[in-house]
Amino acid sequence: MQKVKPALLRGFDQEYLPHEQLQFNALIDIARRNFELFGFLPIETPSAERTEVLTSKGGVEKEIYALSRLAAAGDDEASAKGALRFDLTVPLARYVAMRERDLAFPFRRYQIQRVWRGETPQANRGRFREFYQCDIDIINRDHLSYLAEAEIPSVIHSVFSEMAIGEFRIRINNRKLLKGILQGFSVPEARASTVLRALDKIEREDPAAVQQNLQREGLSDAAAQELYRLIATRRTTRETLDALQRFEQRNEIFDQGLEELTRIVAAIGEFGVPDSAFCVDLGVVRGLDYYTGTIYETTLVGAPEVGSICSGGRYDDLASYFTETRLPGVGLSIGLTRLFSRLKEAGLLRPVPRTPAEALVTTMDSRYQPHYLALARALRNAGINTEVYLETAKLKQQLSYADRKGFRVALIAGETEVARNTVQVKNLATKTAADHPVADVVAAVRAILATH
Amino acid sequence: MQKVKPALLRGFDQEYLPHEQLQFNALIDIARRNFELFGFLPIETPSAERTEVLTSKGGVEKEIYALSRLAAAGDDEASAKGALRFDLTVPLARYVAMRERDLAFPFRRYQIQRVWRGETPQANRGRFREFYQCDIDIINRDHLSYLAEAEIPSVIHSVFSEMAIGEFRIRINNRKLLKGILQGFSVPEARASTVLRALDKIEREDPAAVQQNLQREGLSDAAAQELYRLIATRRTTRETLDALQRFEQRNEIFDQGLEELTRIVAAIGEFGVPDSAFCVDLGVVRGLDYYTGTIYETTLVGAPEVGSICSGGRYDDLASYFTETRLPGVGLSIGLTRLFSRLKEAGLLRPVPRTPAEALVTTMDSRYQPHYLALARALRNAGINTEVYLETAKLKQQLSYADRKGFRVALIAGETEVARNTVQVKNLATKTAADHPVADVVAAVRAILATH
Repeated sequence: MQKVKPALLRGFDQEYLPHEQLQFNALIDIARRNFELFGFLPIETPSAERTEVLTSKGGVEKEIYALSRLAAAGDDEASAKGALRFDLTVPLARYVAMRERDLAFPFRRYQIQRVWRGETPQANRGRFREFYQCDIDIINRDHLSYLAEAEIPSVIHSVFSEMAIGEFRIRINNRKLLKGILQGFSVPEARASTVLRALDKIEREDPAAVQQNLQREGLSDAAAQELYRLIATRRTTRETLDALQRFEQRNEIFDQGLEELTRIVAAIGEFGVPDSAFCVDLGVVRGLDYYTGTIYETTLVGAPEVGSICSGGRYDDLASYFTETRLPGVGLSIGLTRLFSRLKEAGLLRPVPRTPAEALVTTMDSRYQPHYLALARALRNAGINTEVYLETAKLKQQLSYADRKGFRVALIAGETEVARNTVQVKNLATKTAADHPVADVVAAVRAILATH
Repeated sequence: MQKVKPALLRGFDQEYLPHEQLQFNALIDIARRNFELFGFLPIETPSAERTEVLTSKGGVEKEIYALSRLAAAGDDEASAKGALRFDLTVPLARYVAMRERDLAFPFRRYQIQRVWRGETPQANRGRFREFYQCDIDIINRDHLSYLAEAEIPSVIHSVFSEMAIGEFRIRINNRKLLKGILQGFSVPEARASTVLRALDKIEREDPAAVQQNLQREGLSDAAAQELYRLIATRRTTRETLDALQRFEQRNEIFDQGLEELTRIVAAIGEFGVPDSAFCVDLGVVRGLDYYTGTIYETTLVGAPEVGSICSGGRYDDLASYFTETRLPGVGLSIGLTRLFSRLKEAGLLRPVPRTPAEALVTTMDSRYQPHYLALARALRNAGINTEVYLETAKLKQQLSYADRKGFRVALIAGETEVARNTVQVKNLATKTAADHPVADVVAAVRAILATH
């Protein structure tokens, strides 16, 4: 038969072997558990939305995947007007606008799903066309306390601490403050976003290039240097706040931003985030105009080359395209596929058991099948993940399967053991074995599993 | 501002409120836990595959959603050659063929992901264009023991028992047996699948219509009646096996099928599935030619109108389109979105807590913010899901939020309590409250949560 080559689409290629999938699922479980620990509720939204919903906020059309039938079909709304979501924020806005009456506000939601973006895939930078996002948002009607902005870092701190990905730093800044700084440097409103984009490259480009870009936007040589120095100098949070207090071109929006930032820095501490885990960093810019208050990025202290592993910020109105209700919020997104791929590369993934099946019941003789199956049932009833080797094979082959799949215990019973009503319990890590009466097998297996 | 209507695409509309999402997630968690209890390993595959991969086995092209960019873009393989998967079996075949060297066989995998099918949506029959499938398969190289066919019902029994969806029955049949029966009735090979399709309608159509269809396929009046009676008569498993033993037009494939079925029925019992939970049902036909041995369907005893809630079977070669390696297997799929929608309709969903956040720390006075936050941290450190009410609002409003979101405990502390270093702990179910020293709050909350 003519074979089809079993291959994946470029950018749709983050597919794991089972032991890697277990590691990935462990990260998702940690995120879920911690989000729920802070009272966030889960939602999922459909993969495809109406095109007009997706583009309402101005999504980049050439990066959006539209749907169409492979062969002509009758009436199909999805095919005519549907496309895959490119983030979880637009679907959230649509969701809240649709279901406003059924939700309790402040609405705290988490959402862990795949998104699709027609960008150029770059595996070495962790950029793919299909990837998981892992989002939390707190949304209220009309008003949202600054405390919500201070709480977000504590949730993230809780998640990343449990993921054990090494030392990380949550870097925060404030959009009003940035706006005030630009005003202080007399950057016209119309040029603000280009200037911010130039500043966003501080970590990747050399100082001269950034300053040249600033001058191209109309800043004098001296102003470009001064602005660069203000934003790029590495300081402690305390030093940064002091430097801002000394800023000479202060203005109303600057003062408002500085006041917010100072208050939020104090509250983040009260929320239990240690000083070592967060800092104010004026170089955190976030491209989106969407943000209006605190903005966040998080980097790994030991692996800054990985870039920001989660980011987000405060916004004034989530769903203005869909509803008259004003819905201020704050949110944050972990690019989980990207994080996983970079952690794997950097060797920072915490090992998990290679299989969820802890015990393998080997089978030596088909006459004893009921015996093997009863043993497996007893282990499963005790909550021990147990597989029975169902094929006919030499014991050696069964044990090599057990090793390959990562089992921790093998149970062996042939004629002698069955006659004595015992089972040989083999610790596959230490390669030691001992016979136990059938009635004691669960306890014996538990004892081995407890030694990790 | 001109508003966009917040609405969903037809068939892409199984979106839940948070408390429903929690119920849905509870079902997924049960499936995961039980699959792992039996040694199945998780995999996920990309949503989009190469079109030639998806259609290799002959997928229905007009039901497949292809991808294309919303606006013209440069080179994009996904857009030119990619489409969304319509099941989890074709991706599994591609996965195993691609990664054969890295997998340990027998390969037991589970996969819980969304699939997309351009069918006509019928909410009242639980048919949608986007839905979750929840699959398990056991695949080996060259040979697969019949015991794998007998084990599958025990896994399903374990899953559905824990889901507590009421009494269910796993109905099994055998494709060789069906083939032998048709041979016994001299149905030519070329007509076998049409005859099977006619028999597949036994439960939905009246006897006369089914028999007419059989006659249209060339069976005599008497033969159509006899075939109908053999297949459609309700019997116990024992009675069915006896009736088959008495079948007069026996032939080689019939005998082989009957032998397999008899052996597998015996083994299913040994795997611990009670007699009440499974039966042989000759009316289980499964349209796909793909199956070659045992076939399965499962129905709810109290709600037969829901139809089959999971189905599958034994096949001889998983990935013949992709590899020369012969990969026999057996698998089964739960249509989870459909199951959930039908269970919801039938009132069979087990209630889960409406929120994962168990305790709400109310906030009466911003001066005590550090106090409230410390309380929340203590509760979270004890593993209790805890939310702090961060907005400024009257206590009454905070308690009404707590009720609406489904919290079980509220913690209240104003000037008096803070001065005394106590907290009022309120049981929101019983509407009773008591003051406790701060040091005892965790224990007091635990006591309330334990009374369910």
